[in-house]
Amino acid sequence: MPSSTSVDLTHHLSTETRLRKPNPMKAIWRLTRRKPKMISLANGDPHFSLYPIRRVEFEVASVGEDIENPVQTWRTSGPSAPSQRFVSTTDGPSSLPLKSALQYSAGAGLPDAQRAVTELTNHYHSPPDHHTTLTLGNSDGVAKCFRLLGEPGDHFLADEFSFSSLTNAPLSHGIKWVSVKIDQGGLVPEDLERILSNWNEEEQGRRPHVLYTVPCGQNPTGCTLSVERRKKIYALAQRFDFIIIEDDPYYYLQYESPDDNVDCTSKDFKFIPSFLSMDVDGRVMRVDSFSKIMAPGMRLGWITSNFAFHDALVTLTDSSTHHPHAFGQIFITEMLFAEGGWSIAGFDRWVRSLRDEYKRRRDFFVDSFYNEVARSGYASAELPEAGMFLWMKVHLQKHPRFRTYKNGDGNAPGPKTNTKELMEELFERCLDGGVVVMPASVFLVPEAAKTTDEDPIEDRLNFFRLTFAGPEDTMVPALEILGQVLKEFFTEK
Amino acid sequence: MPSSTSVDLTHHLSTETRLRKPNPMKAIWRLTRRKPKMISLANGDPHFSLYPIRRVEFEVASVGEDIENPVQTWRTSGPSAPSQRFVSTTDGPSSLPLKSALQYSAGAGLPDAQRAVTELTNHYHSPPDHHTTLTLGNSDGVAKCFRLLGEPGDHFLADEFSFSSLTNAPLSHGIKWVSVKIDQGGLVPEDLERILSNWNEEEQGRRPHVLYTVPCGQNPTGCTLSVERRKKIYALAQRFDFIIIEDDPYYYLQYESPDDNVDCTSKDFKFIPSFLSMDVDGRVMRVDSFSKIMAPGMRLGWITSNFAFHDALVTLTDSSTHHPHAFGQIFITEMLFAEGGWSIAGFDRWVRSLRDEYKRRRDFFVDSFYNEVARSGYASAELPEAGMFLWMKVHLQKHPRFRTYKNGDGNAPGPKTNTKELMEELFERCLDGGVVVMPASVFLVPEAAKTTDEDPIEDRLNFFRLTFAGPEDTMVPALEILGQVLKEFFTEK
Repeated sequence: MPSSTSVDLTHHLSTETRLRKPNPMKAIWRLTRRKPKMISLANGDPHFSLYPIRRVEFEVASVGEDIENPVQTWRTSGPSAPSQRFVSTTDGPSSLPLKSALQYSAGAGLPDAQRAVTELTNHYHSPPDHHTTLTLGNSDGVAKCFRLLGEPGDHFLADEFSFSSLTNAPLSHGIKWVSVKIDQGGLVPEDLERILSNWNEEEQGRRPHVLYTVPCGQNPTGCTLSVERRKKIYALAQRFDFIIIEDDPYYYLQYESPDDNVDCTSKDFKFIPSFLSMDVDGRVMRVDSFSKIMAPGMRLGWITSNFAFHDALVTLTDSSTHHPHAFGQIFITEMLFAEGGWSIAGFDRWVRSLRDEYKRRRDFFVDSFYNEVARSGYASAELPEAGMFLWMKVHLQKHPRFRTYKNGDGNAPGPKTNTKELMEELFERCLDGGVVVMPASVFLVPEAAKTTDEDPIEDRLNFFRLTFAGPEDTMVPALEILGQVLKEFFTEK
Repeated sequence: MPSSTSVDLTHHLSTETRLRKPNPMKAIWRLTRRKPKMISLANGDPHFSLYPIRRVEFEVASVGEDIENPVQTWRTSGPSAPSQRFVSTTDGPSSLPLKSALQYSAGAGLPDAQRAVTELTNHYHSPPDHHTTLTLGNSDGVAKCFRLLGEPGDHFLADEFSFSSLTNAPLSHGIKWVSVKIDQGGLVPEDLERILSNWNEEEQGRRPHVLYTVPCGQNPTGCTLSVERRKKIYALAQRFDFIIIEDDPYYYLQYESPDDNVDCTSKDFKFIPSFLSMDVDGRVMRVDSFSKIMAPGMRLGWITSNFAFHDALVTLTDSSTHHPHAFGQIFITEMLFAEGGWSIAGFDRWVRSLRDEYKRRRDFFVDSFYNEVARSGYASAELPEAGMFLWMKVHLQKHPRFRTYKNGDGNAPGPKTNTKELMEELFERCLDGGVVVMPASVFLVPEAAKTTDEDPIEDRLNFFRLTFAGPEDTMVPALEILGQVLKEFFTEK
């Protein structure tokens, strides 16, 4: 497997990945190009004249330069909001005609669609030397990275609170988790270093060679890694030879600039540099998705990686999901390249305008949160710099029934407080009050290996994840209930 | 895991499948229904008012009752061919409005789309007690079945010639193949029985508990299993307790009726009963796809199985690909249920008309094949009863350099003839002549365990797969070349 990056990282690929065979028919398909006028009786592909579809049309928001705030206009002007159309017909003129789009293609995606995501990646990240592979959205992308790198018995590193449906995924093929501490600035590089430096391969098996992390608006804690921490973590990746899976669905929803002098609504606002942008070795696999900036049902995303990993991803895709659906590939190709499309400039206007919209929601939510909930002193939250979530800390030590155990609860090493029990009770009370929140316990990295007994995570479960992505008219009533429930919980007799 | 079928078959699930955890957030989502007016701050789902899409429209072939042969009309009338439109808008009126379609959903697919494929399954197969799970097309469906059932070290049974990109897939997770003989009537039940009866678990490991087979227009041999053989194979599945993965992409392309008195173009023509239709135990996993009857780029299909397997498939999907894309789900939901849709009657008219079209191609191809190729006596083929392929047998024993070795070639057990070498040479000559065919060797089940030394498969590689799915104008020139190449090959001095 050739690698075009400067460092050979193929030793990170799992045995399953190395054993995976390319489709032997591909060798035959290549032969069809041996002579100029080859006639093929080789493939069982339906002829495009037999597809029952001759036109696909998407009516989408207009993002022309004359529209100052396209998301706001789209959201509030109803059916009169100006729109554009992405159209593909059998033979064109389309950037991706149905004739090609609806045929079989290779795992990386159709060349034009692949070019679309490559241009987006280059525009926002300018990575040193990387290749894109289309996926079926974020979940598919991350699961494929896990499958690509994970050997049964391996330990992977993750933010200690993570999105459970993703961290659950590789358990069944024998991956174990090691959780890394997270604070308001995101994953803590010093804790990562501690874990890796103290790793004892004889006792614990292979040192973790993969870090899975969400660097912007982390789900569930809402925190964003600073540039400085990113650099430290990347340096650790080089020193300890691990791969970073950069899962970044909230990248475009950044509300605070690393540069304090630039307002995030300004055109000069720069997105925070991604791990990918600093990846000289090719040890970052960046996972992007259209779910949060377009719609989850798009089920389309992409992975950006070094060439060898890209090549292995294509083989994995060819022997599992196959290439993504034509409709999504048409959508993004027409969006970027068609005469009536958005182009990168229009895409950028959309995501910046979307970011403004979410920032407005965040600010409104945070204001209401301070008024309805935090004012009591029973809870607080840091301002989320990106994403969709506020990580609400419950000040349990103020609760009359809060207990600490000096020497553990008798089952040492274990929790030193009754945090878990009290939080379960509070969660039930929220439900009884009529508001649903997400308890921190749901986001615990599953079955994580213990690397320290100090400060056990069971004592740090005093958080709820609240989203500010929803409509504003339900925010205040929800926060009122939450404030009331908290007050009753803390002042019980 | 509850099973609603009469036989508990959960012991067929792999360890990986049993270890797979459902998403813990689902439990929370269920709680949102505890009270009637629950307000949720739990989910990070983008609000539908922020999707930039407000209308998706597919212009498709008209299949009204007034159109006698919709495929022919569509193919030949150009832009004037009558069309229908499947439309989905944000709030409807649509059978599946964008507001729901573009949101996250569960692994089985959106309820309406799932109902669409369930109705198709009930219409054509009336299975006893089964459940459908949407997939991303045939390849994804089959790969998921392999993943669901396959334990590393397991042996799976397959037609001895099979579509390699599928049989290659599970090798990397430790599945081994055992190939079952195939003749012009398809998989041979007696060979299957021989393999299973003689299986020695002490020496060979667990007896194969999965059969992967393509029952109609098998790829590459083009053969179709008779009802009698299907019954015999199902009885063997019950006797030896194995699961049948019925991969049936060519089901709708059946050209000959099992009942000799009914012409296949007649409305009374009945499709041959599938394994699923006779599955009283729930031991059939049927894989369907829209690739061959609509277009490969649809990347949409479904699996029909017992409830316990369905449930495990949903969990597998939730932790890998996620549910399928909204666009395909809209397409099939609007197709079946919308006022301006096809409904099942229209779908049936389309697939029957498509079948007529492919039958016309087959007949034309077979005629040309007899004229240009078979007439020489160097090759022959059985009439394919379904699908897209003709399995051309080369009569190598007529070749001046054909050799047999009485006691093997010295490396017994091994090939007793030079079939492999001669076929490689003939294949190269076809390419040099300007025609691409698919050599049988490409379809050998990879790394299959030997279960007999008589009649080794290396001596039965004297076949090429030819497709008649392509356009008719290239068929005759291609077959002319093939005939000429064969003649020169056999009459060389």
